[in-house]
Amino acid sequence: MSKILLEHGTGAGKSAKLINDIFIKNLGNNILNQLEDASVFKAPQNMVMSTDSFTVKPIFFKGGDIGKLAIAGTCNDVAVMGAKPLYLSAAFIIEEGFLISDLEKIAISMKEELQKNQALIITGDTKVVPTGTADGIFINTTGVGEIVKPGISASAVKEDDVIIVSGTVGDHGSLIFASREGIDIKSELSSDCASLWPLIRKLVEEDIEIHSMRDATRGGLSAVLNEWAHQSNIGLYVHEEKIPLSDETRGICELLGFEPYHLACEGTFILAVKKEDAEKALEICKKDELGKNASVIGRAINEYNKKVILETGMGTKRVFETPSGLLLPRIC
Amino acid sequence: MSKILLEHGTGAGKSAKLINDIFIKNLGNNILNQLEDASVFKAPQNMVMSTDSFTVKPIFFKGGDIGKLAIAGTCNDVAVMGAKPLYLSAAFIIEEGFLISDLEKIAISMKEELQKNQALIITGDTKVVPTGTADGIFINTTGVGEIVKPGISASAVKEDDVIIVSGTVGDHGSLIFASREGIDIKSELSSDCASLWPLIRKLVEEDIEIHSMRDATRGGLSAVLNEWAHQSNIGLYVHEEKIPLSDETRGICELLGFEPYHLACEGTFILAVKKEDAEKALEICKKDELGKNASVIGRAINEYNKKVILETGMGTKRVFETPSGLLLPRIC
Repeated sequence: MSKILLEHGTGAGKSAKLINDIFIKNLGNNILNQLEDASVFKAPQNMVMSTDSFTVKPIFFKGGDIGKLAIAGTCNDVAVMGAKPLYLSAAFIIEEGFLISDLEKIAISMKEELQKNQALIITGDTKVVPTGTADGIFINTTGVGEIVKPGISASAVKEDDVIIVSGTVGDHGSLIFASREGIDIKSELSSDCASLWPLIRKLVEEDIEIHSMRDATRGGLSAVLNEWAHQSNIGLYVHEEKIPLSDETRGICELLGFEPYHLACEGTFILAVKKEDAEKALEICKKDELGKNASVIGRAINEYNKKVILETGMGTKRVFETPSGLLLPRIC
Repeated sequence: MSKILLEHGTGAGKSAKLINDIFIKNLGNNILNQLEDASVFKAPQNMVMSTDSFTVKPIFFKGGDIGKLAIAGTCNDVAVMGAKPLYLSAAFIIEEGFLISDLEKIAISMKEELQKNQALIITGDTKVVPTGTADGIFINTTGVGEIVKPGISASAVKEDDVIIVSGTVGDHGSLIFASREGIDIKSELSSDCASLWPLIRKLVEEDIEIHSMRDATRGGLSAVLNEWAHQSNIGLYVHEEKIPLSDETRGICELLGFEPYHLACEGTFILAVKKEDAEKALEICKKDELGKNASVIGRAINEYNKKVILETGMGTKRVFETPSGLLLPRIC
């Protein structure tokens, strides 16, 4: 099978062929195909920019791969700011010896995910490093988008806001953990890796006052809620039994003693909306396949400043802290 | 000495402290400091976008380091499109065990280089991977800029255009090669790593018809000229003795049998300008410290389509090809 050679990263000869055969073939468009070092585009006035490097291991997993994740992840970071993802860059660091057929699988996943966002990769970079100086493939994507609904921010949660979660939490984290540890998953557990723009578009195009929106990636639900409480200088009150969980993630967490709320999601987002608009927002989510498990999990309160309070099923309360000791590197 | 731990990449706790102590301290600004997953900015209408991942080895070298290179390299790719670099993303993949003091040195270099471009990092990402799965540090920067002079393109070279090189060629490549091979450099050889915008700004603000402009990075001068000849469907005629070379790079190339024209530059660019404007462009370059060694090296001709012809000092002619066999990975 054909493998990546150092020559594929020289910028000439073999690397030009690789770029044509894999990247232009699958990801090409009028802008990218010009192959300039920098690509020209017409920009709207109000934009956002976001970057992420993806180092996930394993690179192929149930529900996705590093390519799908690299597009969905960056487009989601753009989308949760109330912005339509428009243009992305894609930069690959590939270890010498990587299978070219795997690279093409990844490029095809990226293509499919770009279509869901109606976004384009307009500029790229490919570096090849010697065997042993990287682990397979790392992908950076940086995205820009046009703001459709301005003002969404982690520091904009207000008293009485209703907190909605768009779906089950922790599925990406528990799947990656189980795959890596060789836990035999005789279940339907799959990463929730998905592009959120098709659902978020429906929310931002409606007359709904969205104060904060965030995809719950590293650190999961608890990291997002704690960040909001801290940055918005407010308390958040959450009902544990309202948090959607898949049976599979619940099972793995019980087995291993994890809290699912700390585990990464890659296709679930959290919303803080004005109380009066909560029902409408929930309804829009539930009508969409991606948001069918959406749930109101709590509200913003004028007590417990900068803290998140979790009310358990038994009615007891505890402070819901950010994960600290948990080490799960290369989750995304 | 303090080292990077896996916990520095979890997105919470220790990683928040690292981001504050190193990145916000050195690279902070009103936009970045908001620490949203995506950053909001006002965009001009005509923009360019460029991305590069930097894997250079060694990460500290004479004349620069991976941080300087990561800012200068991406800003230069924006600048050679006739655009003012505005906003950058910076994404770090750091190997567990990397020295935090080295990370801060790199951040300080980035800060200094951003100031030369009057550009800002507005969004970032930090991933930590276990020891042995990366080599020290890899940095991706993606930049957007505002087009000041439109129409500059690798496919826009026209017959009779004059080709100007802004300075000595191959210095970055020969320095990196010599450092890596342990060649004792008892000389002034230094990477030419530099931000080009301060000089390019003077060129694009003048009434000079610039058709093509490119920094000569991977593949050096010969890669740029061959790309132009190919994409502009034209011949380029170059006088070898007019190509500026430092004594040190000439010496290393003679010693090792390299052609300096194939070696990377990181602070030298090539211009194709309308014949009537060549003198003015050369004069602007020569008045600037960065362009003091600028030289007219050739012209575009209506023969030898898609080829670059090199006339040697002895008056003989040869086809000046793109480097093919040369393997010098991790040059940038």
